[in-house]
Amino acid sequence: MSNFGARSLRLVNPYAVAFREARSAVGAAALLKQAQEYNTLAEAVADCALAVGTTAARNRVLEHPLYRLDDHSASIRGQLRSSNVALLFGSEKIGLTNEDFSHCHWLLHIPTQQTHISMNLGQAVAVCLYELARESGSHQDAPQIERAAAGVNEQISDALIEALDKSGYIQPGAETASKQKVRRLLHRFNLDSDDAKVLLGMVRQIVWRLRQHSM
Amino acid sequence: MSNFGARSLRLVNPYAVAFREARSAVGAAALLKQAQEYNTLAEAVADCALAVGTTAARNRVLEHPLYRLDDHSASIRGQLRSSNVALLFGSEKIGLTNEDFSHCHWLLHIPTQQTHISMNLGQAVAVCLYELARESGSHQDAPQIERAAAGVNEQISDALIEALDKSGYIQPGAETASKQKVRRLLHRFNLDSDDAKVLLGMVRQIVWRLRQHSM
Repeated sequence: MSNFGARSLRLVNPYAVAFREARSAVGAAALLKQAQEYNTLAEAVADCALAVGTTAARNRVLEHPLYRLDDHSASIRGQLRSSNVALLFGSEKIGLTNEDFSHCHWLLHIPTQQTHISMNLGQAVAVCLYELARESGSHQDAPQIERAAAGVNEQISDALIEALDKSGYIQPGAETASKQKVRRLLHRFNLDSDDAKVLLGMVRQIVWRLRQHSM
Repeated sequence: MSNFGARSLRLVNPYAVAFREARSAVGAAALLKQAQEYNTLAEAVADCALAVGTTAARNRVLEHPLYRLDDHSASIRGQLRSSNVALLFGSEKIGLTNEDFSHCHWLLHIPTQQTHISMNLGQAVAVCLYELARESGSHQDAPQIERAAAGVNEQISDALIEALDKSGYIQPGAETASKQKVRRLLHRFNLDSDDAKVLLGMVRQIVWRLRQHSM
């Protein structure tokens, strides 16, 4: 991270022993000392307008678009000019879960040999950050649109879930799957921050009305 | 190396203990088992038409041309089509010596932050091989996504308007402006046809519930 200018390390439920050792190690980089801990992924990405998950598993059934690092690094660089972007890595052994993916707008993989797609975590991070730090010859200056922060998407998601629940849309027992489905749907909308506020207002008004009837 | 299809590992005077452990480790890749040992660098690169040394030290006085990885990977790829190419990495601590450099045609460095140019050896190798394995040209192999037909957007818009109306969101007299606002919002969502069906189902279920209460 330090080699390529990525300054903010956020850890969700890190393994305490390893994290404490890493932090207190002689010569631990400033970056590691400033690393922040979170209990949930939702909190960790709350101020990020774009969250991208990394995965090696190209054969896994994915609910998200999956892009190659080299093809889609430009869109991450573009977003970085106006907001925080979260690049998510799972643990070395199991990677990110589907629940983790539900917080992502899309997924990326590092193009590798088909016979060996799983990478060492530190090497995968280095390759991704090298690619993101690459100076693009042609800067494609897409118009700057301020995307909604993940925290607002989460608020819309919560309100919509409540509205759907009160309307009988969500089957008993399917709450978790439904919540992930709604969150993915909202990420695909790729709302800008103004639209997100409007949509949140709409859904909250509907929830308010439905609550009145429930009383 | 295995991730990026580099098959031939050659070691010059490796530290015997570490090398033996690495080779006998459970899960050691075939690559590591086939690694070859040499006493001198000259022997190790003898059958290579091009030898490129890697270095982080940009301030060191160098007798060789020093190029950026991203600028000169194409020339290495070009040479690889007709001959072996040696990419040399020094030990983690001291890197390659001037004597080592004397066996090189030119040197390359990975572009990093000026404040932190020294890289972890494994990460440096991964980044170099990722870059060399890069296929030129872009891969816009993103699946074609079928956008929702305008008619479906209109149905969602109608249902959402009704839900908002029944929830007291729409001010009397502002029906036309509100309808246009909702339609523009939905267009910005740029829904694909599957998502549009899901969203239509959600909004219609909410409308159905709100109608029950209105009766």
